[in-house]
Amino acid sequence: MTYRLFYWPGLQGRGEFVRLAFEEVAEPYVDVVREDGPEGMAAMAALMGGGEGRPAFAPPILEDGDVVISQTANILLYLGPRLGLAPPDEALRHTAHGLQLTIADFVNEAHDTHHPISGNLFYKDQKEAAKACATEFLNNRAPKYLAYFDKTLAAGDGFAVGGVHSYVDLSLFQVVVGLAYAFPRAMARFDERWPALAALTERVGRRPRLAAYLASPRRIPFNETGIFRHYPELDIDG
Amino acid sequence: MTYRLFYWPGLQGRGEFVRLAFEEVAEPYVDVVREDGPEGMAAMAALMGGGEGRPAFAPPILEDGDVVISQTANILLYLGPRLGLAPPDEALRHTAHGLQLTIADFVNEAHDTHHPISGNLFYKDQKEAAKACATEFLNNRAPKYLAYFDKTLAAGDGFAVGGVHSYVDLSLFQVVVGLAYAFPRAMARFDERWPALAALTERVGRRPRLAAYLASPRRIPFNETGIFRHYPELDIDG
Repeated sequence: MTYRLFYWPGLQGRGEFVRLAFEEVAEPYVDVVREDGPEGMAAMAALMGGGEGRPAFAPPILEDGDVVISQTANILLYLGPRLGLAPPDEALRHTAHGLQLTIADFVNEAHDTHHPISGNLFYKDQKEAAKACATEFLNNRAPKYLAYFDKTLAAGDGFAVGGVHSYVDLSLFQVVVGLAYAFPRAMARFDERWPALAALTERVGRRPRLAAYLASPRRIPFNETGIFRHYPELDIDG
Repeated sequence: MTYRLFYWPGLQGRGEFVRLAFEEVAEPYVDVVREDGPEGMAAMAALMGGGEGRPAFAPPILEDGDVVISQTANILLYLGPRLGLAPPDEALRHTAHGLQLTIADFVNEAHDTHHPISGNLFYKDQKEAAKACATEFLNNRAPKYLAYFDKTLAAGDGFAVGGVHSYVDLSLFQVVVGLAYAFPRAMARFDERWPALAALTERVGRRPRLAAYLASPRRIPFNETGIFRHYPELDIDG
């Protein structure tokens, strides 16, 4: 049974963390909404909202036969061992999952820089709060997360967990390239400040299947509907 | 080996979701910072920051012998089967975990109502943004989450997952009583709007061990340093 991934069309978003895992190991998957258009969108909506057959609150959603799983980190927890992208023992799987959930928190905060008041309001209607939020994020929060991941990688010979290449490494790559897209000025000295993260980003970006994916039209370009948005007015000198 | 839980002192916070699971089944645990004071705080700090022996980014942190697990939902994923508070099969455990991660998102948004710009700034310095954020939360986001959980419970005979009492039920209880504390006006018609959630809250609150815990001094009262804060100016008519 081919895995089916449901996610909003037109943006990398949280779905991209799942796509990177599939692409890295060349696991076939159906990117349902992208491939089926409005019908795919309707199929996704039918899985959401709560109640019988609607287990998800929001995308991404993974369908594996009868199994339906939502929440990015939960999907990767499920796929990791199946795709050979998780450490072998249970305790290390919880370590990997803890890191992935910390990435999820980091991603939420990166998203909130442009939508601090509400995702239901336009960016232009919360610009002042966004500027304050982005400045705090870039001065305090992002460096705290980045230092944490950098130290984690440095202590693990360049791998996030258990000395093996895992889905966490792929997700860290995605966060770093996303931040570099959104905040080029703040991230200007990235390689010098967080060398282990920089080395991971280079290593992961050179994995042959992933490099081919990133260069293909399947990789949706970063844009201003995703999590990582380049609004120059939110950036600061790093 | 007795479980050791590390969390900030003086507030329920995210640690409370773990405490409720322990209390429900009368599993002994050490609430390290509360019991050991500054020494416990130092022990917690030593587990954080990344690198060798410091796997956590933030509390809560669970120590089970050599195993150290961070992130609330990850801790409950680990404890669920061990405490008899998780459904038996793997797919349902992922369903439970997806719900728990959705609760985590809901809790983050509830927290952001009073700190939309940054957790590093005082509430008084982001009051205007907080008012806008809280209004959006109470009008749009909270009802969306609550309707989702209400439908999930209604379809499951009053249980969140697999027709069995689980840690997800305990966490939903905590969210409901937290919202009722923080936003009494907005939640005034709670029972009528979300009857399945109201029934769950009553059922869980009557569990004998949990009721004893809630009435004991071990249950830290809600207060204005936690996630759910009662700032009357942020509340609206429901």
